[in-house]
Amino acid sequence: MKIKKIQSFYSDKVCVVKVTSEDGAFGFGQCAPKNADITQLILHKQVCPHVLGQDDGDFSIADKVILKEYKFTGSYIARAVSGIDTALWDLKGRREKRSVASIIGKKRERIMLYGSSKQREIPVAQEIARMQKLRNERGYGAFKLRGGMVNGNDMENWPGHTEDLIQQCHKELGPHVELYVDANGGFSVERSQQLLEILEKNNVKFLEEPCPYWEIDKTKEIKNAFAGKGVLIAAGEQEYMFSRIKRLIKEQAIDVFQPDICCIGGFSRAYAASRLAANEGIFTTPHCSTNTMLFPFSIHLMAVVDKPWRAMEHVIESEPWAEKVLKAQPEIKDGYVRVPEEPGWGFEPSSSWLSGARVAVSE
Amino acid sequence: MKIKKIQSFYSDKVCVVKVTSEDGAFGFGQCAPKNADITQLILHKQVCPHVLGQDDGDFSIADKVILKEYKFTGSYIARAVSGIDTALWDLKGRREKRSVASIIGKKRERIMLYGSSKQREIPVAQEIARMQKLRNERGYGAFKLRGGMVNGNDMENWPGHTEDLIQQCHKELGPHVELYVDANGGFSVERSQQLLEILEKNNVKFLEEPCPYWEIDKTKEIKNAFAGKGVLIAAGEQEYMFSRIKRLIKEQAIDVFQPDICCIGGFSRAYAASRLAANEGIFTTPHCSTNTMLFPFSIHLMAVVDKPWRAMEHVIESEPWAEKVLKAQPEIKDGYVRVPEEPGWGFEPSSSWLSGARVAVSE
Repeated sequence: MKIKKIQSFYSDKVCVVKVTSEDGAFGFGQCAPKNADITQLILHKQVCPHVLGQDDGDFSIADKVILKEYKFTGSYIARAVSGIDTALWDLKGRREKRSVASIIGKKRERIMLYGSSKQREIPVAQEIARMQKLRNERGYGAFKLRGGMVNGNDMENWPGHTEDLIQQCHKELGPHVELYVDANGGFSVERSQQLLEILEKNNVKFLEEPCPYWEIDKTKEIKNAFAGKGVLIAAGEQEYMFSRIKRLIKEQAIDVFQPDICCIGGFSRAYAASRLAANEGIFTTPHCSTNTMLFPFSIHLMAVVDKPWRAMEHVIESEPWAEKVLKAQPEIKDGYVRVPEEPGWGFEPSSSWLSGARVAVSE
Repeated sequence: MKIKKIQSFYSDKVCVVKVTSEDGAFGFGQCAPKNADITQLILHKQVCPHVLGQDDGDFSIADKVILKEYKFTGSYIARAVSGIDTALWDLKGRREKRSVASIIGKKRERIMLYGSSKQREIPVAQEIARMQKLRNERGYGAFKLRGGMVNGNDMENWPGHTEDLIQQCHKELGPHVELYVDANGGFSVERSQQLLEILEKNNVKFLEEPCPYWEIDKTKEIKNAFAGKGVLIAAGEQEYMFSRIKRLIKEQAIDVFQPDICCIGGFSRAYAASRLAANEGIFTTPHCSTNTMLFPFSIHLMAVVDKPWRAMEHVIESEPWAEKVLKAQPEIKDGYVRVPEEPGWGFEPSSSWLSGARVAVSE
């Protein structure tokens, strides 16, 4: 069926996309959060003209749009086209009365979550206190901490912060809680190597984006230095160009690949990239930094990838602007979330959020 | 002096930027053309907040903004920040009453231009006729033709088009006219190699973007296959990430580097990249695909680069939307253009164009 109408519902932070076909079938998707008002403009100006009239079952649309807009490669086009691809999967699922994961081939029924902190300026004792509370309430078996500073050239928020955070968290949360550390590009190769022993001794299973993400060679250098020590290297959330993704994967620069479904250009591209990763023995676990529609998208991805990392990111911050996009949040029990069996994503945007959003239409 | 005000004057196609400092000194710059209305929004929302209050003599501002907006890497941020960097150079030149090229260290007084066709569907006889006419009128000693189709997987607009175009142009324009061929990503490695003999025999000095630009490995493969045959490989106009630029250059994937000053993130970044290229023995000649302010920016770059290619791109299409941005076009005589000696760029936007544009201000 041909795609007939594309509506965007947007605030400054989030842009939900509704795609409707000529037979009236529809689905909801979402672009990557932040600057969503600009993403929405790009969606209608540079994406919709290539999508309207196309077959709603063509999941290469995202690739085609990115190719057509080759003069504007970058985060924005991928953010915008993600809204289309994710809406098309929902549409297909609703039409066929199957969940997205079932259509592709569901490999697991529930997904382990790790509690993901977004704060690196929080006092260590306070970070531990909220993690202990959440461990009791939600049963998380793993947490991700924030080390270093964002692209911070080895700087620390205060002297010894990263080391202290890791050691205290391990001590207070106990040996049964796995830790991950996200450096957001904060470290050099040398600093990463210097941290290795502390990471090893404190049950840290992966170090994420140790150095700036665009430095693939340095990422690989760190990965090689860490090889065999039980601390893996994770990255991938910033990627939207397959030429770079292939380098990360084929050159074995990482151990754990973390595509962001709304930043890479949609579910189809994230899944395709996860297969490339699995072929090279690399784990996948999606970057899921907001509890918007990205959360259910990510659950479905984890349900179908060939080589999943054992836990998926779940943001522990309270962010009403994000959480209110969904009609209901997926339920977390004993640190796990169920893979939805309902049609499409199994979760849809809240009607009150939609009715409060600005709207634009292409048809 | 601190940057106090940033004004954008924009149409859908072009965005001119005026930066004013606390002492009232000002300069004009320009973002990359096309979707300039969106670029302008990104300028005010994601670039200006990092720029206002900064030192107007800090030419690392573009790098800093791109780093701060690391979640939004891509063409758009670079397009927007180019407007700031080019305005700051103009401001410095006007304040010091020196041309931009003079401030950096002018190495040449005039620049040879090549006539650059943007048409690949034009009948061959018609292409030759207009090139002969322009050769007589403006004295171009070189022309660039368009072969293949944009990212076209070896397809041709009609059978034998590329071969015919090259052979006919060489025959009719004569042996004293150099030819360049731009494939805009249209060819495979095999097709490029198949064309080598025809390129060699018909005075074609470089093949530009033979394969899709994101395929650095394939570009390098073609470059290596062409080595020593007198036909160089050119590319670079799409680049905005230094990690990719360094790969192109350090891995010797190209012979001629073609930065676009308004796409790479400004004059400072284009000049820095040209120095990396020269250090590796690679020529630079800027991509200059519109006769907007980009044309004078490019002339200044050619005046200062360490290892210039012998000619610079000059669009031969009539594009009033682009040409009307400048108060006056640089004069072309005997195939050359003079490097301006007037303060700043030596060319400024037309006041009638400015007064017809939409305006936005950050201060």
